[in-house]
Amino acid sequence: MTEAGSPALRTALAYFRAWTSHDLDRAMSYIDDDIVCHAPAGVLKGADAYRGFMAPFVQILTGSELLAAFGDDTTAVIVYDTRTVPVPSAPAAECVTVVNGKITGSRFIFDRLPFDTARKTQG
Amino acid sequence: MTEAGSPALRTALAYFRAWTSHDLDRAMSYIDDDIVCHAPAGVLKGADAYRGFMAPFVQILTGSELLAAFGDDTTAVIVYDTRTVPVPSAPAAECVTVVNGKITGSRFIFDRLPFDTARKTQG
Repeated sequence: MTEAGSPALRTALAYFRAWTSHDLDRAMSYIDDDIVCHAPAGVLKGADAYRGFMAPFVQILTGSELLAAFGDDTTAVIVYDTRTVPVPSAPAAECVTVVNGKITGSRFIFDRLPFDTARKTQG
Repeated sequence: MTEAGSPALRTALAYFRAWTSHDLDRAMSYIDDDIVCHAPAGVLKGADAYRGFMAPFVQILTGSELLAAFGDDTTAVIVYDTRTVPVPSAPAAECVTVVNGKITGSRFIFDRLPFDTARKTQG
């Protein structure tokens, strides 16, 4: 979990620390304009689409815990748990590709089912 | 993604290759009797519960692709996509703790929603 040797992990962790601190502007400074993100609901293309995906989640975020983080020159993986308003424990994993300090590709994995259930329960 | 230096990653990849080859018996040889696994539906305790969780998934598995794999002495993370009978693309991440060549702890992350939707559509 050392980040000193991995350029990709340094970027991934800086991005993670920013959005989990509710600083979406700072988080987006690590996102490439042409990011391609494979999210559970489909493929997001471009920074605007990515911000539109992250913004509602950052709004309901009440806490986070980093569970594991690894990387090499171009790829990093972070695994974490989050606390959110509708779902008390929502773990996720992000596998990112980093080029020149910017995240150009991302595979975002989390379980949508509890969020879907919470939304339906709320009506 | 080199596994030579990481004992935990060697075990995680051997386990992954076994179950993605439909060899659940071999996969279970890497699972500690007292494994604690945080899966989307809740906490699974013990190898029997873990096997009961994996067996139905291995049955519907038609293909897999490893996307990233990292590890150190005791922790490994693997990220992969799977093809399954009901869901054509079901990516997942596993963050595992390895002690003496056995997986003693696991955080298993995937999206249950498409499986839930497929089940409801099937009736």
